[in-house]
Amino acid sequence: MIRIGIVGGTGYTGVELLRILALHPECVISVVTSRSDAGKRVDELYPNLRGFVDGVFVEPSANALAGCDLVFFATPNGTAMRMAEALLAQGVKVIDLSADFRLKDPAVWAHWYGESHVSPHLLQEAVYGLPEVNRALIRSARLIACPGCYPTSVQLALLPLVESGAIRLDRIIADVKSGVSGAGRKAEIPMLMSETGESLKAYSVKGHRHWPEIRQGLEQAAGQTVGLTFVPHLIPMIRGIHATVYAELNAGYGDLQALFEERYRGEPFVDILPPGSHPDTRNVRGVNRCQIAVHRPLEGNTVVILSVIDNLVKGAAGQAVQNMNLMFGVEETVGLRSVGLYP
Amino acid sequence: MIRIGIVGGTGYTGVELLRILALHPECVISVVTSRSDAGKRVDELYPNLRGFVDGVFVEPSANALAGCDLVFFATPNGTAMRMAEALLAQGVKVIDLSADFRLKDPAVWAHWYGESHVSPHLLQEAVYGLPEVNRALIRSARLIACPGCYPTSVQLALLPLVESGAIRLDRIIADVKSGVSGAGRKAEIPMLMSETGESLKAYSVKGHRHWPEIRQGLEQAAGQTVGLTFVPHLIPMIRGIHATVYAELNAGYGDLQALFEERYRGEPFVDILPPGSHPDTRNVRGVNRCQIAVHRPLEGNTVVILSVIDNLVKGAAGQAVQNMNLMFGVEETVGLRSVGLYP
Amino acid sequence: MIRIGIVGGTGYTGVELLRILALHPECVISVVTSRSDAGKRVDELYPNLRGFVDGVFVEPSANALAGCDLVFFATPNGTAMRMAEALLAQGVKVIDLSADFRLKDPAVWAHWYGESHVSPHLLQEAVYGLPEVNRALIRSARLIACPGCYPTSVQLALLPLVESGAIRLDRIIADVKSGVSGAGRKAEIPMLMSETGESLKAYSVKGHRHWPEIRQGLEQAAGQTVGLTFVPHLIPMIRGIHATVYAELNAGYGDLQALFEERYRGEPFVDILPPGSHPDTRNVRGVNRCQIAVHRPLEGNTVVILSVIDNLVKGAAGQAVQNMNLMFGVEETVGLRSVGLYP
Amino acid sequence: MIRIGIVGGTGYTGVELLRILALHPECVISVVTSRSDAGKRVDELYPNLRGFVDGVFVEPSANALAGCDLVFFATPNGTAMRMAEALLAQGVKVIDLSADFRLKDPAVWAHWYGESHVSPHLLQEAVYGLPEVNRALIRSARLIACPGCYPTSVQLALLPLVESGAIRLDRIIADVKSGVSGAGRKAEIPMLMSETGESLKAYSVKGHRHWPEIRQGLEQAAGQTVGLTFVPHLIPMIRGIHATVYAELNAGYGDLQALFEERYRGEPFVDILPPGSHPDTRNVRGVNRCQIAVHRPLEGNTVVILSVIDNLVKGAAGQAVQNMNLMFGVEETVGLRSVGLYP
Repeated sequence: MIRIGIVGGTGYTGVELLRILALHPECVISVVTSRSDAGKRVDELYPNLRGFVDGVFVEPSANALAGCDLVFFATPNGTAMRMAEALLAQGVKVIDLSADFRLKDPAVWAHWYGESHVSPHLLQEAVYGLPEVNRALIRSARLIACPGCYPTSVQLALLPLVESGAIRLDRIIADVKSGVSGAGRKAEIPMLMSETGESLKAYSVKGHRHWPEIRQGLEQAAGQTVGLTFVPHLIPMIRGIHATVYAELNAGYGDLQALFEERYRGEPFVDILPPGSHPDTRNVRGVNRCQIAVHRPLEGNTVVILSVIDNLVKGAAGQAVQNMNLMFGVEETVGLRSVGLYP
Repeated sequence: MIRIGIVGGTGYTGVELLRILALHPECVISVVTSRSDAGKRVDELYPNLRGFVDGVFVEPSANALAGCDLVFFATPNGTAMRMAEALLAQGVKVIDLSADFRLKDPAVWAHWYGESHVSPHLLQEAVYGLPEVNRALIRSARLIACPGCYPTSVQLALLPLVESGAIRLDRIIADVKSGVSGAGRKAEIPMLMSETGESLKAYSVKGHRHWPEIRQGLEQAAGQTVGLTFVPHLIPMIRGIHATVYAELNAGYGDLQALFEERYRGEPFVDILPPGSHPDTRNVRGVNRCQIAVHRPLEGNTVVILSVIDNLVKGAAGQAVQNMNLMFGVEETVGLRSVGLYP
Repeated sequence: MIRIGIVGGTGYTGVELLRILALHPECVISVVTSRSDAGKRVDELYPNLRGFVDGVFVEPSANALAGCDLVFFATPNGTAMRMAEALLAQGVKVIDLSADFRLKDPAVWAHWYGESHVSPHLLQEAVYGLPEVNRALIRSARLIACPGCYPTSVQLALLPLVESGAIRLDRIIADVKSGVSGAGRKAEIPMLMSETGESLKAYSVKGHRHWPEIRQGLEQAAGQTVGLTFVPHLIPMIRGIHATVYAELNAGYGDLQALFEERYRGEPFVDILPPGSHPDTRNVRGVNRCQIAVHRPLEGNTVVILSVIDNLVKGAAGQAVQNMNLMFGVEETVGLRSVGLYP
Repeated sequence: MIRIGIVGGTGYTGVELLRILALHPECVISVVTSRSDAGKRVDELYPNLRGFVDGVFVEPSANALAGCDLVFFATPNGTAMRMAEALLAQGVKVIDLSADFRLKDPAVWAHWYGESHVSPHLLQEAVYGLPEVNRALIRSARLIACPGCYPTSVQLALLPLVESGAIRLDRIIADVKSGVSGAGRKAEIPMLMSETGESLKAYSVKGHRHWPEIRQGLEQAAGQTVGLTFVPHLIPMIRGIHATVYAELNAGYGDLQALFEERYRGEPFVDILPPGSHPDTRNVRGVNRCQIAVHRPLEGNTVVILSVIDNLVKGAAGQAVQNMNLMFGVEETVGLRSVGLYP
């Protein structure tokens, strides 16, 4: 049994980890930390976990976590980069769900996250935990940078096209829509139901932190620079991301449907829908799955890819557990086979 | 393996049965019928089932269902009472999720459902599938009448009080709130999102079909007549029922919290919350569970019971599978242990 | 023109006052205060007001408000009772939308609001601003206590029955459902969309501050003590209150529909629906109106009254403007004639 | 007083016309037709109109409408083109809110609407009712083709750029999000709240009927062909459209903010937000207004325009009344000055 520690167990990615891991047959939840709710029963705060998760939140500390085989960081940015090194030194593996280890270049990280990186050498060691790209590296990694929710949906939508050279790389547009849980469990007026219900808005159009992450991934896949416009939108629903990605096709791009089906053949958590489909975010709600449809409107030379995930599952906690399974030699789908609620 | 047939697989209770049974280790889905979508792939209509349910919808017929061990009816009222007898005669067990077998008195049934009952003798044989009341009978039943969603939430809220004589029986009030999926998957203007979103209303205040069903259950528990006012409300959310039940306490009613905990001790799917709790419907969304809290406002002599279920799970398909497990000697919780999504 | 000051212009009742008063032909908005946003343009915070409300928020102070004819307090409880006296002394009239002047008994006020009242003598002077009860007193008042949202919906539902003696007064039940805007514009985790969307819960079942206010109003109407159970619920929508009120009819109660129509004949903002109606909260969204339907389920002796308002309009800012019109001799409906959005 | 007829008064654009016209001081609603609800009181179907709209729905017929000065068609496509000519011949002016007269080329119309146009000569006469483009023509028109909701939001977003030559015209992308009321009041399963709530999807990516309408408008503004990709999305909210429009800037494009402010200076219903703004659809809900913000992400050469309207107001009924005011010499804003509800 893998002994698990979760740092930051009271946020939405933390409780989603608890939900998934509570029924995972190969692991035991040893420690769940929370600065704000230490001493409180986990199932008092989250009654959905009654009967599934026992025990109380504890203060985060290296001591408390030392006996774990694996620690997940479900914390705000800036925490994992301060604690990971000590854990790794004790032989504890680390999966970080925050942004601390996602970018390779410390200068770029510092620009977008507003402070110098505390452990820049770990930026190099960290494996970007997108199994559809880095499965082999993940198996042997000590430290995983779990991808952001937007970057997961956009990269999975673009990888077949970028890797195959089917599209022009200088003017890709990703118009992405997210449910409100992506903003986390923080007491902020703009995320009240009265503020976000029955309304829709774009945000961070000037530049969003997931832009350099997406670009880094695409440029690695392409082996060259990529021009990307990325506009996130806040949608009046709780879970789900829908990426609508636009690109210009190069001559001789071939059969797009076959290209996508081929690229993701055998992938347990990427599902290419039949031609003409329009994926609904609800069909992946609560499950570790990306559903994708490829379109060429009016038979022109613009390709439109529609890609949906649950931001808290394939966009966070589910993907983290997928990484865990790979790191510990567990079959990749264990604990992650579930069917989305409909309706 | 239990060979399963589902009649009416395209409605919300039908697809919810598919979702649960797809991962149930002791059964195999043999036949799924649909009059409207015969010939279509199940996962074309319901992309959440891709990779989990194979095959196509077939026309409903006795032949198609004859090879099954168990047939679920997830049909509108009036279908099961016309088909059940033939199946039972062939040794096929039946669980009806519609209202066809819920009432014992054919005259009462005819009054509320607007036609004469076709198989009145089966009304007597049918076991009302509320395991918290009829567990032993269910184990040996051929024909189960699965309780309605409102009746499940209200009866579980009242049974400890009614059985113990703690409350006056002549003036019970059940104010119940339901998500819109309770109305089913039917093309009706009043259930459009534009009509039901961002609004709230009561309906059927003059009298609702679940009223005689609830009263029948309470009177059986009490051994005497019961006076009940029942008002259902339509809430702008998809899943979930919240019953708020009011009754007047008799002298010497004792410790209410203990009464409820005692009554449901060992019940795998009824969860009495700690004193002072207010259950959220979301905490049981997608799971086969009823969470209950007991209150006595301002220390007066009115008891208020708060009871939440998912109308499609403990109020329909989940409860049906719980019945199936009992009927076929499978451990009662198999296929039904899951954790509600939060948020 | 009536010169208006608004204290606390950044909360939901404050901005709703701005919305209504911006188009009111008999008044001019002179001062809008906000501690948190002083110096900021009003229409920067609230872009719906662009072109309708000019100017900036100012720090609240007696000086800033001295030149007004009327000051509205759209503040948290505890502010108006500290500032009203000075304003009244300068001849400024006051309408308080908070709870500071709603209860007559200082001891009851202190019990429910957790501190001693600062201006207990004003509790006696303040007129409870329910025009359907106190129209004449309001016309000559200096200080109005605008009713709470729940109390408005419940009292309007019960007044005809209580005043006429048609019901037993010892066991009235008010099960009330409210949209989330009733909780105000405060940064609190439980009011995030991720927490309140797609879910439903009761709260404060042990006792809610609006209970003594409702009881005070009913006891005044009845001339005797009243037994009331009041349970509020939080509904996943932004605006709207639906009160479902239950009472036992006394013998000889007469024609209920006629009783209600008679009681509210000529009332511009109370609308008795035809027999058999079920009011939707959406039909009064954004408008100063209470719609009511009266039912007697199954022809028994329980009466059920369904009453809907918009908590921010007839339950707060609209009712406040209705009071203003009465106080300043303006026709009562000026600025308040609008049609609810459908859908 | 303008005598008004409304054909198709029971759909969402019809009842929105009723809501606006009920308070319009210069017109009287003479006839409201409905095939399905003839004989029923208007305010029985729409209780929000109680006290504002009297009378009953009548069967549609030329006779019933002959006495009107103006007839609005709020009908499905295909009705107005069969009835307009007869009305015009009797001197009745016509504003069509359907798509019957929006396209100039009968062949293009036939291609997208699936039948031959019945009155192709009227396609030439009809004035496209976008006042920001055709104000002078509208004043003297007999027949107005009221623009579609998507086309209004996208054209207003692009006109300043297209007219001024600031952008490349061969690769414009319009990613547009709409609330569900855009689908109308029709009994269809995909528009049930259980189907559209808490989920998001694109639709008609292969080609949508509003694409030729938008392109026609842009090409008229540009005087040359335009390459446009248009992808609509269905959002879980009732009202509101958010267009996110992407285009590549030509060299020397100048000050974008000034360009937009200049183009719409004096326009009563187009509001250019300050630099850096992100419009919310809620801020224009229920009002005849388009709010627009212009961005250049990361200071690159892609311009992103954010444009919001209420699909039923500036995208339908409000714009129709704006056209009416112009046609009848009423000040353009009469009946249309209102403030959006917040929250």
